[in-house]
Amino acid sequence: MVRIGLIGCGYWGPNLVRNLAELEEADLAVVADVDASKVRKLTRRYPFLRGTEDPGEILRDAAIEAVVIATPAETHFDLARRALEAGKHVLVEKPLAMNPDESRRLAELADRTGLTLMVGHTFEYNPAVRRLKALAREEAFGKTRYIYSTRVNLGIFRPEINAMWNLAPHDLSILFYLLDEAPVSVIALGKAFLKPGVEDVVFLYLEFPSGAVAHVHVSWLDPSKVRRLTVVGEKRMAVYDDLDSEQKLKLYDRGLESTLFVDGGIQDYQVRLRAGDILAPKIETTEPLRIECAHFIECVRDKKRPLTDGWSGHRVVAALAAADESLRAGGARTAVRVA
Amino acid sequence: MVRIGLIGCGYWGPNLVRNLAELEEADLAVVADVDASKVRKLTRRYPFLRGTEDPGEILRDAAIEAVVIATPAETHFDLARRALEAGKHVLVEKPLAMNPDESRRLAELADRTGLTLMVGHTFEYNPAVRRLKALAREEAFGKTRYIYSTRVNLGIFRPEINAMWNLAPHDLSILFYLLDEAPVSVIALGKAFLKPGVEDVVFLYLEFPSGAVAHVHVSWLDPSKVRRLTVVGEKRMAVYDDLDSEQKLKLYDRGLESTLFVDGGIQDYQVRLRAGDILAPKIETTEPLRIECAHFIECVRDKKRPLTDGWSGHRVVAALAAADESLRAGGARTAVRVA
Amino acid sequence: MVRIGLIGCGYWGPNLVRNLAELEEADLAVVADVDASKVRKLTRRYPFLRGTEDPGEILRDAAIEAVVIATPAETHFDLARRALEAGKHVLVEKPLAMNPDESRRLAELADRTGLTLMVGHTFEYNPAVRRLKALAREEAFGKTRYIYSTRVNLGIFRPEINAMWNLAPHDLSILFYLLDEAPVSVIALGKAFLKPGVEDVVFLYLEFPSGAVAHVHVSWLDPSKVRRLTVVGEKRMAVYDDLDSEQKLKLYDRGLESTLFVDGGIQDYQVRLRAGDILAPKIETTEPLRIECAHFIECVRDKKRPLTDGWSGHRVVAALAAADESLRAGGARTAVRVA
Amino acid sequence: MVRIGLIGCGYWGPNLVRNLAELEEADLAVVADVDASKVRKLTRRYPFLRGTEDPGEILRDAAIEAVVIATPAETHFDLARRALEAGKHVLVEKPLAMNPDESRRLAELADRTGLTLMVGHTFEYNPAVRRLKALAREEAFGKTRYIYSTRVNLGIFRPEINAMWNLAPHDLSILFYLLDEAPVSVIALGKAFLKPGVEDVVFLYLEFPSGAVAHVHVSWLDPSKVRRLTVVGEKRMAVYDDLDSEQKLKLYDRGLESTLFVDGGIQDYQVRLRAGDILAPKIETTEPLRIECAHFIECVRDKKRPLTDGWSGHRVVAALAAADESLRAGGARTAVRVA
Repeated sequence: MVRIGLIGCGYWGPNLVRNLAELEEADLAVVADVDASKVRKLTRRYPFLRGTEDPGEILRDAAIEAVVIATPAETHFDLARRALEAGKHVLVEKPLAMNPDESRRLAELADRTGLTLMVGHTFEYNPAVRRLKALAREEAFGKTRYIYSTRVNLGIFRPEINAMWNLAPHDLSILFYLLDEAPVSVIALGKAFLKPGVEDVVFLYLEFPSGAVAHVHVSWLDPSKVRRLTVVGEKRMAVYDDLDSEQKLKLYDRGLESTLFVDGGIQDYQVRLRAGDILAPKIETTEPLRIECAHFIECVRDKKRPLTDGWSGHRVVAALAAADESLRAGGARTAVRVA
Repeated sequence: MVRIGLIGCGYWGPNLVRNLAELEEADLAVVADVDASKVRKLTRRYPFLRGTEDPGEILRDAAIEAVVIATPAETHFDLARRALEAGKHVLVEKPLAMNPDESRRLAELADRTGLTLMVGHTFEYNPAVRRLKALAREEAFGKTRYIYSTRVNLGIFRPEINAMWNLAPHDLSILFYLLDEAPVSVIALGKAFLKPGVEDVVFLYLEFPSGAVAHVHVSWLDPSKVRRLTVVGEKRMAVYDDLDSEQKLKLYDRGLESTLFVDGGIQDYQVRLRAGDILAPKIETTEPLRIECAHFIECVRDKKRPLTDGWSGHRVVAALAAADESLRAGGARTAVRVA
Repeated sequence: MVRIGLIGCGYWGPNLVRNLAELEEADLAVVADVDASKVRKLTRRYPFLRGTEDPGEILRDAAIEAVVIATPAETHFDLARRALEAGKHVLVEKPLAMNPDESRRLAELADRTGLTLMVGHTFEYNPAVRRLKALAREEAFGKTRYIYSTRVNLGIFRPEINAMWNLAPHDLSILFYLLDEAPVSVIALGKAFLKPGVEDVVFLYLEFPSGAVAHVHVSWLDPSKVRRLTVVGEKRMAVYDDLDSEQKLKLYDRGLESTLFVDGGIQDYQVRLRAGDILAPKIETTEPLRIECAHFIECVRDKKRPLTDGWSGHRVVAALAAADESLRAGGARTAVRVA
Repeated sequence: MVRIGLIGCGYWGPNLVRNLAELEEADLAVVADVDASKVRKLTRRYPFLRGTEDPGEILRDAAIEAVVIATPAETHFDLARRALEAGKHVLVEKPLAMNPDESRRLAELADRTGLTLMVGHTFEYNPAVRRLKALAREEAFGKTRYIYSTRVNLGIFRPEINAMWNLAPHDLSILFYLLDEAPVSVIALGKAFLKPGVEDVVFLYLEFPSGAVAHVHVSWLDPSKVRRLTVVGEKRMAVYDDLDSEQKLKLYDRGLESTLFVDGGIQDYQVRLRAGDILAPKIETTEPLRIECAHFIECVRDKKRPLTDGWSGHRVVAALAAADESLRAGGARTAVRVA
């Protein structure tokens, strides 16, 4: 049993509590939030929980082995750092930090101390995304040419961060997971309609070392909710639609294939359209957050490196920071520095 | 009756022939194409048509009042210029020309001669697009904040032009029509996967004098066909989905509304989500190309300026040329010069 | 505050507990189930609850004013009767009983004692169904001609009852609510594929005093989940699709209208197709079960007759019993006797 | 080359002309219709066609080898009989006749004379339906348990026949083709709203010798167009949706499987839910009518028996006639006599 304290009882915290409470190996003992009413709501629902308004109480509690952090993004770095320094394993919500210096420091701190540092990139624990990666890795899929993702809805406006920092961490973590690489550069374009300086709509264009490119469209100013990602490979294509209850994942056995030929000394390309079957594989319905929480416990217990470790969190933060810089510079191509 | 000759019997020509043949006011008399087999196919189907392999024959025929041009884009300028110089009214397929110098010269030539020059921006004659504009102009819709359009499919690769020149003229003509303005600048990003230098996937980001922005995603390398455009207004939103047979147009009475308030000397924005009904207005089912052809005949007969005149064609060409320049420069923000 | 005991902690019970626990006016005090493990699951989650394996304990407890029954259908009659005889108000899950003699006895018992007897026809508390009824009652909708409903999925097989008794109570309660009448007759056709005598697929055809007819298709042997009901009025039509998150309810301003005319002594009908807009009204998102529970508390407290009282439960049971008889008789038209 | 005359230039005739005109082996020479304007419309469009207002002219023309009949259903029998008696091969639209005596006489006449008699059950030539049959015949699909079909829309009211005679021939021909058998009995329920005696909505329930059952819902009084058929097999299921452009056919590798077991002398059934992948096979896009016309020519030329011969047409007519009888008798189970 891993004894756990959770900090942050707001929007996402209760989901973590629900999942941790049902995991046999986890012993969630205490929850903290500066807002007492949020603490009370959880302790009333889960009477075995102790509540506190002082997060420091968790960090100082020698009996707590692991800390789960679900506070506003601006506080992630400080809380995660203090928890690691107090010798505790950490699961922190995305984004890991608000700038790459901080995220790198956390990743290094975890490496140095040998403690588990895991970032809550939930989608990397989503069975549909995992299956998508397995399919896209197959010889029959061909090299991934490009990926585009749309994550829009009429949503909760976050005055302190913009739609990119709010929504795009999901897309970026999926992209880097699928491609197994961090981007070389990013171009970000967007506009603030509701409050100056807080972009409601952002478009990202990313270039990768492999030659793949990706596009991300995030917005909280859209008539409909869309959560859709398309992967175009050299031979096959795939669509992951998180809102399609029957066909979350579709694999298209179709594509345009190009062949170089030489005719009388002249080189040219012959392009052939191939259209085949569509397969919607059965996707396991386990809640991704459950898989994520179980993975965290397992990593702590068995001293395994998490799938979404500090460095994974860092490359997302590095890309977001570069994108933010590009956004401020009106869409200038900006290098993403991960190392 | 307007006596008409048509040049270009390939992909789009037969659609024009079918529509012109059924218009009472039009007297389509002759069709030309350098490919004799294409000419023959049409004259066999429409035995009242005369066929020729020499487009010049139409241009020299004094009895022909109007010329319809549906040849490859590279030939538009030359044929349209010769037709206007021969004193003939002209309906030319989009894009009007391959660069803004040529498109401006054509627009000026039409103005000088008093002849009708019309560009085949079919979507501006589409009843759904017309209705969309009427709705977006209403007080209740509010100012248009942004528009994004997706025009992708697994499609016909065009080695001589890229996916942008092939597909985006539609989106740009719709955008400019809806907003009643040409863009200030454009950023174009894309990539060629099948043949070096011929982009298969292009993303455009456009900024307008009114403050509106627009995004266009075109590709012929996609698993599914999508033809969807979303307009986000200050109070309402609309989606035009050309492939939705039951609800081509949806008007969403919902939005995020932002109010500036001052509290103790501090200014801030309060954002309120409003969610209301969705209305899918009945859309007239007349074929847009039929409306377009009838409009051309009417303009010639009544000496009216067409909705999509030479200057309308020119601003699309100017935007495409600026986008092409941006694409070559790796996404540099490029001014669109229409005047 | 109404002091409540709940009997039946299986599939549906926990949903009732969750909703009752969050209602201010309800004081859910004790839960009972013959299966101790189900009781424990709830008391652990809601530590303020007392648990018992003996439902009789609740019925004998003088402090309990109201009893909520969510046990298997076969036990509804006996438990509801005992609760009413013990002077308690009762909310019982659908179907109210397994035959119309029993359901009538319960309705009469409630009338005689002045106690609240309410049946859990949840869909009558569903905001989309309520709105549908309001729309279908409007002059502009015209008289309802016919309704058809599909409730199929690949589902939980219930060996003790068939798909009709399991699924159709929902459809029948919606139909009778929408039409404000009970049917005159029913024809039921179906087939048992998995276990002899237990129909997996059933089709019902109902005739109403007003002249309206209805068709219901239920099955737990279907590739996809469908929950869709179509109402065809003389002037308008409506579709209620419970699985459509964006457009749960659609009102179609279209129809075929028939006019009788006399031409030279010969009578005939002229039929005209009218196609207009589609409206998807905004539907309140409150959970129907919450509204149902609140309504029960309100009825108990204010001595109001519930929307879904014993007689409402009775007419559904009477229709099911007639349908069962028709099913056994191979689809014979069978009278529904409600009075 | 087979020399052909076509009788009936109304709604469906032009589609047959278009397809026959493009078939190399067919020599469509003459078209007839009692309405001269309809004849003229076709001869103007296809100048190689001779036109006549007298169908008898075609029947008497010794040079005509085959006659295609696309007239109103009431005239099918008489025209087909006369054509066969005149020694001509016949392709006649569905339904083959208006009663089973007539349809049997035609089938027998064709057998006796050795002439080709083919009925235009277009869906049996539809690549999606053919593929569906191939899939449903596989061992892995299991025995077909039941099929249901929905063919509704807001449609063209036909005062002379009802929605069943107008629409259900399609469904019945598909059902009999898929199951390779004719039904034992039929129950038909429906109602006339627009004109007394002309049912706008009809539900059919059919029982087959193999134990399979089928349900058909036809209506021209529906808000939306639906063309969907579901086949439920013992191991797999399939959906054919003619309006789904991307996934016309879906094969579901899922089902409920039932096993009989004996436990302590008691027999019971264990039911297991199995959920697997969904496959949407690539469907050839050739127009079904083209395949049908080519098949007719091939049968005439090679003296082959058509897939949809007179007996195939007869069993559809026999089922419709029995259904009509059931409808008049208020849904009485009515035997279908094919032999």
